Amino acid sequence: MQNRRNILFIMCDQLRHDYLSCAGHKTLQTPHIDTLAARGVRFSNAYVQSPICGPSRMSTYTGRYMSSHGATANFVPLRIGERNIGDHLGPLGVRPVLVGKTHMIADRDGMARLGIDPQSPIGVHHREAGFEPYERDDGIYPDKMLGMMGQPRYNDYLRDKGHEGDNPWHWAANAVETDKGLRSGFYNDITDRPAAVAEEDSETPYMTRRAMEFLDQDDGETPWLLHLSYIKPHWPYVAPAPYNDMYGADDVQAPIRSEAELKDTNPLMRHFMERVAGRTFRRDEAIRKVVPTYMGLIKQIDDQLGQLFAFMQERGLLETTTIVLTADHGDYLGDHWMGDKDYFHDPSVKVPLIIADPSAQMDATRGTTCDALVQSIDLLPTFVEHFGGTPAAHLLDGTSLRPLLTGEATRVQDFVVSEYDYHQQTFAPEIGTGPRDGRIYMIATTDWKLIHAPGFDPVLFDRRDDPQELHDLGRSPDHAGIRADMLARLADWALQYRQRETYTDDMAARFTAFEEKAGVLIGYWDENDLIDPGNAVNPPQGQET
Amino acid sequence: MQNRRNILFIMCDQLRHDYLSCAGHKTLQTPHIDTLAARGVRFSNAYVQSPICGPSRMSTYTGRYMSSHGATANFVPLRIGERNIGDHLGPLGVRPVLVGKTHMIADRDGMARLGIDPQSPIGVHHREAGFEPYERDDGIYPDKMLGMMGQPRYNDYLRDKGHEGDNPWHWAANAVETDKGLRSGFYNDITDRPAAVAEEDSETPYMTRRAMEFLDQDDGETPWLLHLSYIKPHWPYVAPAPYNDMYGADDVQAPIRSEAELKDTNPLMRHFMERVAGRTFRRDEAIRKVVPTYMGLIKQIDDQLGQLFAFMQERGLLETTTIVLTADHGDYLGDHWMGDKDYFHDPSVKVPLIIADPSAQMDATRGTTCDALVQSIDLLPTFVEHFGGTPAAHLLDGTSLRPLLTGEATRVQDFVVSEYDYHQQTFAPEIGTGPRDGRIYMIATTDWKLIHAPGFDPVLFDRRDDPQELHDLGRSPDHAGIRADMLARLADWALQYRQRETYTDDMAARFTAFEEKAGVLIGYWDENDLIDPGNAVNPPQGQET
Repeated sequence: MQNRRNILFIMCDQLRHDYLSCAGHKTLQTPHIDTLAARGVRFSNAYVQSPICGPSRMSTYTGRYMSSHGATANFVPLRIGERNIGDHLGPLGVRPVLVGKTHMIADRDGMARLGIDPQSPIGVHHREAGFEPYERDDGIYPDKMLGMMGQPRYNDYLRDKGHEGDNPWHWAANAVETDKGLRSGFYNDITDRPAAVAEEDSETPYMTRRAMEFLDQDDGETPWLLHLSYIKPHWPYVAPAPYNDMYGADDVQAPIRSEAELKDTNPLMRHFMERVAGRTFRRDEAIRKVVPTYMGLIKQIDDQLGQLFAFMQERGLLETTTIVLTADHGDYLGDHWMGDKDYFHDPSVKVPLIIADPSAQMDATRGTTCDALVQSIDLLPTFVEHFGGTPAAHLLDGTSLRPLLTGEATRVQDFVVSEYDYHQQTFAPEIGTGPRDGRIYMIATTDWKLIHAPGFDPVLFDRRDDPQELHDLGRSPDHAGIRADMLARLADWALQYRQRETYTDDMAARFTAFEEKAGVLIGYWDENDLIDPGNAVNPPQGQET
Repeated sequence: MQNRRNILFIMCDQLRHDYLSCAGHKTLQTPHIDTLAARGVRFSNAYVQSPICGPSRMSTYTGRYMSSHGATANFVPLRIGERNIGDHLGPLGVRPVLVGKTHMIADRDGMARLGIDPQSPIGVHHREAGFEPYERDDGIYPDKMLGMMGQPRYNDYLRDKGHEGDNPWHWAANAVETDKGLRSGFYNDITDRPAAVAEEDSETPYMTRRAMEFLDQDDGETPWLLHLSYIKPHWPYVAPAPYNDMYGADDVQAPIRSEAELKDTNPLMRHFMERVAGRTFRRDEAIRKVVPTYMGLIKQIDDQLGQLFAFMQERGLLETTTIVLTADHGDYLGDHWMGDKDYFHDPSVKVPLIIADPSAQMDATRGTTCDALVQSIDLLPTFVEHFGGTPAAHLLDGTSLRPLLTGEATRVQDFVVSEYDYHQQTFAPEIGTGPRDGRIYMIATTDWKLIHAPGFDPVLFDRRDDPQELHDLGRSPDHAGIRADMLARLADWALQYRQRETYTDDMAARFTAFEEKAGVLIGYWDENDLIDPGNAVNPPQGQET
């Protein structure tokens, strides 16, 4: 067992990059996550491929940009045949195991078209994005979608604990008791109240225990990547006692916003501000009530991770397990006059990323912060290299982070790209956006961030002089050259072969200058044109004319 | 049978757009093809998605840009799951039937990964790009590749006719007799001599007869699209008597080239000129010897089509069959100091396209020439509409040409795009091009053609003032604005969702503003935020707290 070098890949849902004490939060203490940072590298410029659950996760699990894998929005199935984490790690003998959320929507039409039984091993492999589903729980089970999503095992657990009804996920774990009875956590006016479950029965401890159960049942031989994928601190913002009131309004950091942002606002950005979540988080009352609960949910995760790490230490697993912690996107929480995520300011698109690898090769960087630009698609090639493989460069759009972990390099790429498909937004039909036209692209270098949306003026932020992104230079005459340069980089990014999936770089090398060797003499006048006289084409001996 | 509205989809391989008498060739007479043009619409600005067999055909058979389907070069398999002509026409009750070449390379790794038996109906469907392979013959069977390609049925036919050996395709149909014995048609110094087969046993008549056999065996009920896909006039430039010397050096039109093109040549264009085929066709002797044979091969096709059309007329099929004739790319034949194809001057990337639809709706355009910009991916949506279907807009990158055929419209798009992956070219490793970096993009409007290749200066042609494309304005200071505009169009073209294959536009409409209806109240403060009070989330009746 000690020879295995497993990975515990923790993902929190909707966890902002700056809501950890190691990332500078002043009132929220996350000592266990901080310990992880002290044991590894904390990345301070980690971006997701899309600031929304489904597309972001599909990028993480395939190692490909959103435009590459095509699952551009929630509810868009990941097409059959798209290579996933299991396709990359399986051949290395590694079990990718899931406890929690993936947001994977299976391509059932594609399976039917190709004759794949969804219940067969290949069908399950595809449906679960390549993970072995030890516990699959996507964490959002509104009553009306229960038929479409299926019942999570967690609902059975809650019923065992005495919570009745069809959907205790909703009406116990994500509801609160009020004078007038139960109230759904989808309403934010009650987020200061405790969840209608005991703390130990809430989602985060439940998932943590499921991870421990996997570790106890592990065969001790097959290397694994355990994806512990917490649903929280994603909404519904409901925390069990004592986490619901562990923090108060005094603990809330002032939102990052300025009155100037409301003037001459980029029209598309304005649509995002005007969404319900934006209107809610424009109210001070909402920030004072929701943010402490959001902090409590993070605190609960940190406490649970403390228990998990202790559990692993008892079993000698901490010395051999690389622990990765990240999120699928952030949360505006009122910053820039917005709520939820979806747009491209840092609170939404930047995420925490900590990689703590106990191997001696990583000693040089232990406890450091790395400010290199990295993105979530960089994780899968990092995992492949961790397990001794060579990342499939023709499939994986990202870059392994190992050179940053060993200290061999201080950067791995010049820019990061994130994308968002806004066609599902309520405002999209109102402004005439067609079903395939809700496209927004973010490209960020160390110095600049450009947000490009066809049909709208661009947005430009100066990342050095305006790290809080309060001044949109998208229409500044002085910055026309910068915008053109960033757009040219984005165009160059778009003009790549990312669908040549059946043809490795080795195959490409083999087929270069292949014709003459194969006897296909394209345009050769006679034997004098041969590069190698040995490639001459001669009639078979004894062939009769 | 008369109620069926079948399609005969003829493709010639490597047939230049201007080597038909109806397209203005002065010495080559193609009366049967001209008749087709007189009965339909001849498109004078039809472009292929890539000026090389495999990628071009994969675009035609999938209706998608080369970058979309990913089979960017010959030998690159079309990935499993990619929707093909059969996926689009099958649900309409149409049999797509193949006689001849597709150049399809099956994704055998993908089939193995997804558990698809290559011999199963689904496996065959994929391997044959969705066609029912009545006769599959890719037309290039060099001896050394016979193991990889498999024996064509045509070799059996030739052996039955007394041509012995392993590979009579090569040593009878595509070789000539000389004083020193047989010589391969891959050498161009003997292209004036007749093929070592009788005319009736050469490839074009053989394939024509196979098409007739299909028509005779047709069940008379199921609508079909018969893809009669000739290998000729593609090299080896070997024609049987009398076509080998039906034309002589006096019939050859002067190559389109100027000495100025050899000065300050764009460096990447220069590499294409310097290929073996370019060096060969720089020799007047080569042009005088090869071009007449190329013309003879076209003349043979025209004669065979005359026989086929007569055969169809006898059976009453001409009145009900739409006939489409096109090519997968052209041939430089010495124009612009180049041979073969691969680069983006019109002789290479522009193709003939004639659509003759006997239905009365098309009477208004019968016998006309249409100069609208069209491309080969427009054919599949045209076919879908022909058979009464609605093109799947989320999969098909092209635009139906029916409005041009009925006369409702005079244009369907503002520009066309073609792509070429040059990593297999011999010069690619010499100039340090990586396996995924051999990317060239052409974008053409009515007025301009830009050729963009990362790492090289662009090439720009003024299509109005310089229709022969003799003056590269890629570095002209006066044209910087035009180049920037064309590059911006190309960038906009690249930034599209073409991989969202699992999600129709109807689904997109269904999921827009879906959340509230589904009970996912993102950021709602209370019931006052509801768009529709009926969507309020309430606890189940009788739910105990």
